[in-house]
Amino acid sequence: MARSLRRVLPSEDIYYIGDTARVPYGGKSPSTVERYSFELAGLLLAEKSKVIVVACNTASALAVPRMQEAIRVPVVGVIQPGAAAAVAASRNQQIGVIGTRATISSGAYERAIRKLAPQARVLSTACPLLVPLIEEGWLGESVTREVLHRYLDPILATGIDTLVLGCTHYPLLADLLQEVVGPDVTLVDSADNCALAVKDFLDREALAVPSEETGRLRVALTDHSDAFLRVAEKALGLEVGDVELKTVQSK
Amino acid sequence: MARSLRRVLPSEDIYYIGDTARVPYGGKSPSTVERYSFELAGLLLAEKSKVIVVACNTASALAVPRMQEAIRVPVVGVIQPGAAAAVAASRNQQIGVIGTRATISSGAYERAIRKLAPQARVLSTACPLLVPLIEEGWLGESVTREVLHRYLDPILATGIDTLVLGCTHYPLLADLLQEVVGPDVTLVDSADNCALAVKDFLDREALAVPSEETGRLRVALTDHSDAFLRVAEKALGLEVGDVELKTVQSK
Repeated sequence: MARSLRRVLPSEDIYYIGDTARVPYGGKSPSTVERYSFELAGLLLAEKSKVIVVACNTASALAVPRMQEAIRVPVVGVIQPGAAAAVAASRNQQIGVIGTRATISSGAYERAIRKLAPQARVLSTACPLLVPLIEEGWLGESVTREVLHRYLDPILATGIDTLVLGCTHYPLLADLLQEVVGPDVTLVDSADNCALAVKDFLDREALAVPSEETGRLRVALTDHSDAFLRVAEKALGLEVGDVELKTVQSK
Repeated sequence: MARSLRRVLPSEDIYYIGDTARVPYGGKSPSTVERYSFELAGLLLAEKSKVIVVACNTASALAVPRMQEAIRVPVVGVIQPGAAAAVAASRNQQIGVIGTRATISSGAYERAIRKLAPQARVLSTACPLLVPLIEEGWLGESVTREVLHRYLDPILATGIDTLVLGCTHYPLLADLLQEVVGPDVTLVDSADNCALAVKDFLDREALAVPSEETGRLRVALTDHSDAFLRVAEKALGLEVGDVELKTVQSK
């Protein structure tokens, strides 16, 4: 997500917070994910952010609606842009969605897709092993291929032509995923589409900084995390130099 | 662990707290694991516990030494009993240890084994995919077998005759593990041995309750967790009826 934002909005300063002390969110309850999301939003508001981007699909699925009600600064999640891109990409309106347990059981992608295309059929499946496989770095291994087949074969059998990668980590598996789903299924990356949505929003509201400036990237984590750093430089496209540590209050 | 304790100490009341809001601990930093462990110990002290059992291997590896210094009530972890059982079980003193990233990189088992048997050779390997595989319920699947081979073949090749299951979840995989390591390797379950250590301690200190009483099991979680409940009834042997929710403060 940070990589997508940097590419689409090279002039903007980005302040990235990763909640490494409490990840993964994917197996936690909606109220806990919401509480954690508000705490992180508070840290970003203290930094005078003009837009809050919720880059985590689980947090987007479970917390963004209430954040948008409660926070004055615009809050952009990944669900709506991902759903819109999937509807645009699909020819037969049979759309697959993969994500964490919490994202899938929230039904957020299904609702967002149906709102845009009421006739669409949405086939969702939770893939809780993918994040650990990615963190292990097993991106092209036979065991990872076998796991993907177990998760995806049932929804591929229904005839989907589009698959939403509903978790920030999944694009790292894009090559293997494309191989498993075959060339006729379009993969939709929620991060890229979210970055475009942020750009549209800034342009529309005249909030963008002049394009000759070069934005800075600051990274803060709530816990020092080797797993994060391993993934971040690849998946998230962060050049992680100096990383700040931030404390979160969990009430 | 709760199951082992109930079996070995049927007369004692057990108050079990699972930190479902922040698990897994296995990828977190030592200071964060220590902080979380002290918070949970505080909740148990508030319940007037006479012994604190740290059933999580990661927390035992990273936090028990400082907890023993700082807390007046005795603190029993799983590392020392597991190490002692492994040394007793091994004929050739070539001992394998599997656990989370944090447990393995702490070197706690290696230190504890070497203290008891300075000539022992300890072969450790982190297996971060096993907990997610167990939580997914894939206990006998071919993909799980393949993952076990990837993790274990290198240490099996060194000639170990004993393997310590250094994570509370792993005994659920005991059948498949035994198949993968072969009949000549003894599996050592840290939970069973920890429960025996607690019993010894209570007997020695005359802290045990009269044996005609029947103890109660109370379970509290820091977040409502389907994944926990799915695993708990099997792996942890808990009859999870009414589960309390506890709030933790993360400072």
